[in-house]
Amino acid sequence: MIRERINRLRRCMAQRGIDAYLIPTSDFHESEYVGEYFKAREYMSGFTGSAGTMVVTPAEACLWTDGRYFIQAAAQLAPGGVILQKMGEEGYPTLEEYLERTLPEGGVLGFDGRVICAKTALSLQKRLAARKVSFATSEDLVGEIWEDRPALSCEPAFDLDIRYCGETAFSKLTRLRDKMAAAGADFHIVTALDDIAWLLNIRGNDVACNPMLLSYLTVSAAKAVLYCAGKAIGAGLAGRLAADGVELRPYEQIYRDAAGVPAGSSVMLDPAKVNYEIFRLLGTNVKKIEQENPSTFFKAIKNPVEIENLRRSHLKDGVAFTKFMFWLKTRVGKQPMTELDAAEYLENCRRAQEGYIEPSFDMIAAYGPNAAMMHYSATKESNAEIHPKGMLLVDSGGQYYEGTTDITRTMVLGPISDEVRRHFTAVVRGNLNLARAKFLYGCRGINLDYLARGPVWELDLDYKCGTGHGVGFLLGVHEAPNGFRWKIVPERNDSCVLEEGMFTTDEPGIYIEGSHGIRIENELICRKGVKNEYGQFMEFENITCAPIDLDGIDPMQMSAPEKEYLNRYHAAVFEKLSPFLTGEETEWLRRYTRAI
Amino acid sequence: MIRERINRLRRCMAQRGIDAYLIPTSDFHESEYVGEYFKAREYMSGFTGSAGTMVVTPAEACLWTDGRYFIQAAAQLAPGGVILQKMGEEGYPTLEEYLERTLPEGGVLGFDGRVICAKTALSLQKRLAARKVSFATSEDLVGEIWEDRPALSCEPAFDLDIRYCGETAFSKLTRLRDKMAAAGADFHIVTALDDIAWLLNIRGNDVACNPMLLSYLTVSAAKAVLYCAGKAIGAGLAGRLAADGVELRPYEQIYRDAAGVPAGSSVMLDPAKVNYEIFRLLGTNVKKIEQENPSTFFKAIKNPVEIENLRRSHLKDGVAFTKFMFWLKTRVGKQPMTELDAAEYLENCRRAQEGYIEPSFDMIAAYGPNAAMMHYSATKESNAEIHPKGMLLVDSGGQYYEGTTDITRTMVLGPISDEVRRHFTAVVRGNLNLARAKFLYGCRGINLDYLARGPVWELDLDYKCGTGHGVGFLLGVHEAPNGFRWKIVPERNDSCVLEEGMFTTDEPGIYIEGSHGIRIENELICRKGVKNEYGQFMEFENITCAPIDLDGIDPMQMSAPEKEYLNRYHAAVFEKLSPFLTGEETEWLRRYTRAI
Repeated sequence: MIRERINRLRRCMAQRGIDAYLIPTSDFHESEYVGEYFKAREYMSGFTGSAGTMVVTPAEACLWTDGRYFIQAAAQLAPGGVILQKMGEEGYPTLEEYLERTLPEGGVLGFDGRVICAKTALSLQKRLAARKVSFATSEDLVGEIWEDRPALSCEPAFDLDIRYCGETAFSKLTRLRDKMAAAGADFHIVTALDDIAWLLNIRGNDVACNPMLLSYLTVSAAKAVLYCAGKAIGAGLAGRLAADGVELRPYEQIYRDAAGVPAGSSVMLDPAKVNYEIFRLLGTNVKKIEQENPSTFFKAIKNPVEIENLRRSHLKDGVAFTKFMFWLKTRVGKQPMTELDAAEYLENCRRAQEGYIEPSFDMIAAYGPNAAMMHYSATKESNAEIHPKGMLLVDSGGQYYEGTTDITRTMVLGPISDEVRRHFTAVVRGNLNLARAKFLYGCRGINLDYLARGPVWELDLDYKCGTGHGVGFLLGVHEAPNGFRWKIVPERNDSCVLEEGMFTTDEPGIYIEGSHGIRIENELICRKGVKNEYGQFMEFENITCAPIDLDGIDPMQMSAPEKEYLNRYHAAVFEKLSPFLTGEETEWLRRYTRAI
Repeated sequence: MIRERINRLRRCMAQRGIDAYLIPTSDFHESEYVGEYFKAREYMSGFTGSAGTMVVTPAEACLWTDGRYFIQAAAQLAPGGVILQKMGEEGYPTLEEYLERTLPEGGVLGFDGRVICAKTALSLQKRLAARKVSFATSEDLVGEIWEDRPALSCEPAFDLDIRYCGETAFSKLTRLRDKMAAAGADFHIVTALDDIAWLLNIRGNDVACNPMLLSYLTVSAAKAVLYCAGKAIGAGLAGRLAADGVELRPYEQIYRDAAGVPAGSSVMLDPAKVNYEIFRLLGTNVKKIEQENPSTFFKAIKNPVEIENLRRSHLKDGVAFTKFMFWLKTRVGKQPMTELDAAEYLENCRRAQEGYIEPSFDMIAAYGPNAAMMHYSATKESNAEIHPKGMLLVDSGGQYYEGTTDITRTMVLGPISDEVRRHFTAVVRGNLNLARAKFLYGCRGINLDYLARGPVWELDLDYKCGTGHGVGFLLGVHEAPNGFRWKIVPERNDSCVLEEGMFTTDEPGIYIEGSHGIRIENELICRKGVKNEYGQFMEFENITCAPIDLDGIDPMQMSAPEKEYLNRYHAAVFEKLSPFLTGEETEWLRRYTRAI
């Protein structure tokens, strides 16, 4: 079947004189998650992982993916005869090297220009210039041969009330236009779905876990145009958008309009966000002002209404999580349960909360050694039974009208070894030390990462990821430009100066392969502290509201300030949650939030 | 007198058609400290501070200096009618702005091209290009009018034995040539005195506190040429240098030789180190490979022989300092003493140590409120009497054949308030927490600075400087490219990845104007720790060996690991120092290194 698809693609390529065809894992918006319509790479290769890029030539078909997927990809690619190219492994060419040596002099590289961002395409173009390679990007060849392709999602969008978002779209557009004027831009093209949703105070349902609307937006001094499926916008929302000066046009019309931007205009855009086709259609007579979308920075700073809502959503999420934790810790061993059962129970606890919409990402409920896999997601095949021993790690979150949550707790279900307790305590200490940091304005995540990671490093261990990421407001659970990380990775764009109102996770961990995994994750809101002759001091409000399992902690390994902070945190958790719990749950919580 | 000098300079300028003349505070080598010969700015302005740049035009004479010197400069400049331009203050033009608006279109800016680095001159040239300003840089006009100018220093240089430096000059030059070959360089010009001294294993006495030789060095694959005063190099040293393939030429000949570099050659140089005149004389037909001198990185990594020597020099320095501290703390109130007496006593303790050469910088001995001035240096006028109350801060160091030391201790001389004790304890905690850090290879100072600064920030206080700087081996007490700092300042070049063998100070502080100042400074050698699947762990060896005054510490404010580290440190201090102390001193030290 795969072989037949590849051969059909090759016939299309031959008809058009294309020497190699590139199929990435992306939608038209550089989204983190893609809808069914966009799973062209999976359709063509048979590989179902979340990351991978396929290249088809007349002679070969190859797929590049990373270490997480080597085993799975090898198995899924074999039937179709697709060659696995292991990224980062010696002896395998990079995608660029492969294209460089495979494409003939003066050859043609084809891809759907809408699913590769301008930055990537331009860098490829530069690299292949020596071989005089040209691009054919205006056709979606996989679309030509994909018969039963799922339709593009066009779920109804909704208006996010001012009591949730705290600032009108008109005000946000005005701020944006100020930035455009300062940069000398006549137009601004926004294609990032979260930026559009935030700017216009709309949310949708076109991407799983991400309440966003498939759309493009252009803004000029005079007007804003939202390109989306007409039926996604009801009359009420259409009226409100019109009042904010937003005109509606069909989703696909952005391409015609981009081609029609008058020569000599200045267009602000982010080449890492805008797809190559839009960039190309603007043509060379339009001046591109290449910079990060101003809305990316704007939306990272939560306003006071959003912050007040976030306190509410985190309270609800804390109630749901604590009810789940009570159930888990009191029922384990008394009834059969699996990872998927636990996930379902927790999801039901969230669903019982008013204003809950959907999970903010695929839940991780990982028991025992499964928790050592940082990106483990239980499937029917892997689904482990949970017993009254070891630990269960649950990383989950919800989308509420009052914002997005992301919480991880590792729960002790039976006796644990001294080593595991030492690891657990170190992770808790790291989490608390970052949360209680006090620092001068101007600090970035790189200045503070050690606070969370130090207790882990002290044990000659590490977690191979950042300590925390920015979180959207009823948007993506991963958001730029704030984060905690000890090495700056420019393409991640998560090392900005921490500003008042930024909202970042704090999630150190320890992962011992084949044995156990521990992660404790809270969310922190950056706030102003004292201002004096030394500058503006900053601190964090710890907004996540759920107990950290005392059964895993050795108080002897904690400093007095660490214990004090934990005790204050737990006292607040008890005070805030207990009104929403049953008597039994309240008694349990009292014990699990006791001072140590 | 100053007015007369300025007028004579103006006559020289007029003869040569120069519209403005620039007089910085520098020598031909961008040295941190300059010799008497180079104090042209002081000679022309009357201002004796360590930093400042003067500009003379036909109509005005101005001097730019920073906040440390506003009061002193205003007083010293007044008699000569030189206008004070306060750097960083509103309402004052920057030097560049001033030149831009003062120089006529097509005007001529003059300066001695040997006392401004190529980078600064080129940036000025770019800035003034719009006004078509040209440079006249081949004459030292201050030299023309300076009648009793001190001679250029040409003290004898000496050979630093292999038992001190641990690597032959030949081996160092070979490593350097490998880097040159990799960069495609035919020649390399080194003008930084510390780089030359390190590369050739020579030391001199031409700069106070910096045992270096006024010299330039050029290196090609075939040979190395050292340009210096002939009489500085004795026969023995000349023979050794010849054996290492180093030819000697007169100091000033570098300029003729630079002009003679064949067109088409590639010359590696650091424009921030090489002076503009050399850069200019190379001409445009020589390809410049602009990069940091490889020797800057090489010499930052102390080899095992140097490290073993550093342990010895720090032991000696610790003996000297502890004898001083004993004297101070037991004699204060029983005999009259001043800041200068204390400094002299400590200097004498160092002089009693075998292998001691000179101070590594001007000692700071600051009593009471004087210690709140970070760069205070006692003069006959300011010299405060020391009484058995408050604290004395002493920041000092020595040049030994076995390396350079830099230590600060703040000593309690009588009762102190709870606030001062809280500050003292916070500074000690910061110092210890950085010293006991364990981290993965790849960390820079920016990752670790919080460890030292956090306890100070927790009190809503800060110290307005980095936490630490690299230190040379019998070279400058400030050395690139390692350091601890929370914001990267590119021109300081002190934020490199911390490598095994790097040698850095750890000196947090608290400075309360008009009240007190506390700084505790140790030196740390970066070492490898465990290597495992997470990477190479790194840690510090705390090489400074002197008690931290327990009279200032509140143990209740310290964590168990902090106390443990301090107790271990003090136990080691006692064990290492006591064999070199009198019975009385030993008993005193036993008390001051007791476990808390």
